[in-house]
Amino acid sequence: MAIPARVRIIDVGPRDGLQNEKQPVPAAVKIELVHRLQDAGLKEIEVTSFVSPKWVPQMADAAEVLAGIQRRPDVRYSVLTPNMKGFEGAVAAGVDEIVVFGAASEAFSQKNINCSIAESIERFAPVVEAALAKGIAVRGAMSCTVGCPYEGDIAPEKVAYLAGLMKGIGVQRVDVADTIGVGTPRQVQAAITATLQHFGVDAVCGHFHDTYGQALANTLAALELGVWNFQSSVAGLGGCPYAKGATGNVATEDVVYMLHGMGIDIGIDLDKLIDAGQYISDFLGRKSGSRVATAIVNKRAG
Amino acid sequence: MAIPARVRIIDVGPRDGLQNEKQPVPAAVKIELVHRLQDAGLKEIEVTSFVSPKWVPQMADAAEVLAGIQRRPDVRYSVLTPNMKGFEGAVAAGVDEIVVFGAASEAFSQKNINCSIAESIERFAPVVEAALAKGIAVRGAMSCTVGCPYEGDIAPEKVAYLAGLMKGIGVQRVDVADTIGVGTPRQVQAAITATLQHFGVDAVCGHFHDTYGQALANTLAALELGVWNFQSSVAGLGGCPYAKGATGNVATEDVVYMLHGMGIDIGIDLDKLIDAGQYISDFLGRKSGSRVATAIVNKRAG
Repeated sequence: MAIPARVRIIDVGPRDGLQNEKQPVPAAVKIELVHRLQDAGLKEIEVTSFVSPKWVPQMADAAEVLAGIQRRPDVRYSVLTPNMKGFEGAVAAGVDEIVVFGAASEAFSQKNINCSIAESIERFAPVVEAALAKGIAVRGAMSCTVGCPYEGDIAPEKVAYLAGLMKGIGVQRVDVADTIGVGTPRQVQAAITATLQHFGVDAVCGHFHDTYGQALANTLAALELGVWNFQSSVAGLGGCPYAKGATGNVATEDVVYMLHGMGIDIGIDLDKLIDAGQYISDFLGRKSGSRVATAIVNKRAG
Repeated sequence: MAIPARVRIIDVGPRDGLQNEKQPVPAAVKIELVHRLQDAGLKEIEVTSFVSPKWVPQMADAAEVLAGIQRRPDVRYSVLTPNMKGFEGAVAAGVDEIVVFGAASEAFSQKNINCSIAESIERFAPVVEAALAKGIAVRGAMSCTVGCPYEGDIAPEKVAYLAGLMKGIGVQRVDVADTIGVGTPRQVQAAITATLQHFGVDAVCGHFHDTYGQALANTLAALELGVWNFQSSVAGLGGCPYAKGATGNVATEDVVYMLHGMGIDIGIDLDKLIDAGQYISDFLGRKSGSRVATAIVNKRAG
């Protein structure tokens, strides 16, 4: 196994995790969560989305949250920006990276953002161009790269197609997301290999869901292809409102535990991370979605 | 990855899964569970233990359960036999395989079975000899091969030592068990590699717990060493009464889902397996411990 010696985790909990919460989460709680994540050693945090509050009311406080964070120079703060209006908000808030998004499934693209894959890329092109002109980094989230709730299995060719379109508009790195968590190791490797037609391995982030319990096995499979950037969500927060049954971002705690055990340099304090997860789980009045956090919190309690 | 093209699953749910249940599980329910597992395609089932009912009251009906199973010639029925008395019960019940057990941790051996590792092997020697003389297969369960609740990390040398003792008394194949679920892929590979000093890869079974969510990643890591026999427990039943917080046999459904997705020949009908898991979970009045079962049952419900 030619497994990378170090790994970078992008915690998407504050954005992908919280975006679909029905109960309001005050900006102060989001800010505290980000502070706790960076205290635990996270160097990349997907903080919020600059989207219409009509569509995603939970993210209406995007500017307030970003203004409230005591930023660290070695931490990258990213946000979702679906359009120029969102991009302008992100610029005003001084973000380090914007995220545009597309699906490898036409049906998902239509149902999720009401346009074809090619149209979604056309819409993002001016946003990406504007970001690059301002020296803001650009990541592209590719959803449904293994399976789609409407189309079923997604062929690697579709992933390569989307990755090529992303590359074409100037996206610098991409997330290979198994949005509904149906993928297993070889399927995930096929999606990543397809992406590698257009992006170097350093520009690929694995984003796996644990709906079927496969996320860590898929992480290992991705590591074996040299992928060393991964997205996860503290306490396993979040899912996708458009993909039925698609709860289950893999918990950051579970990924960190595996990587620590494998001797991979990750720079994260697991105990502090677990505390961050407990903080937000307690706020939400919910059990943590992390098996590691659950086991370690039980152990602490003796 | 030189991953095996086929895999054999040993479901340990009826024994390892149910042994610590406080509520009585009638023999008829255990028998029905075994029937459902074999209907789903399981070819090896760890059915029960011939142990003192004082120690494990849940297994007091071992003979009754074995007598009630409509056996199939292509299914192997195994039981735990700690001593000659248990062995005689197992012989009378006509089992295919007996299981003896030892720990790679001295502290665990002392606390679990009140003797040293070497003493435990001495005690099992006549049982193994008697079984082999009667043409009954013998498996050795090696617990705590990665971590121990009392000693912490377990060095691979200790696993090799135990495997050597098992081999020395005639044990034909061994389980490499991560009894408390703390292992990650490289640690599990080290434990397996140590075992391979004494046993061929065909004689090694991986037995992983999901307490820290690592079991499928560890399964993948074991597959990559050529291991193709794995133990798991339908619905994730069971744990170990002597290892604090050590709930979490990996769910058979989760292993099967991954293997199916990887195109590995396994001969198990996942839907029937999920039904078997629902049957016993419903009886116990408990949610299934399988993420796959949970996701698919939710999906079925629409």
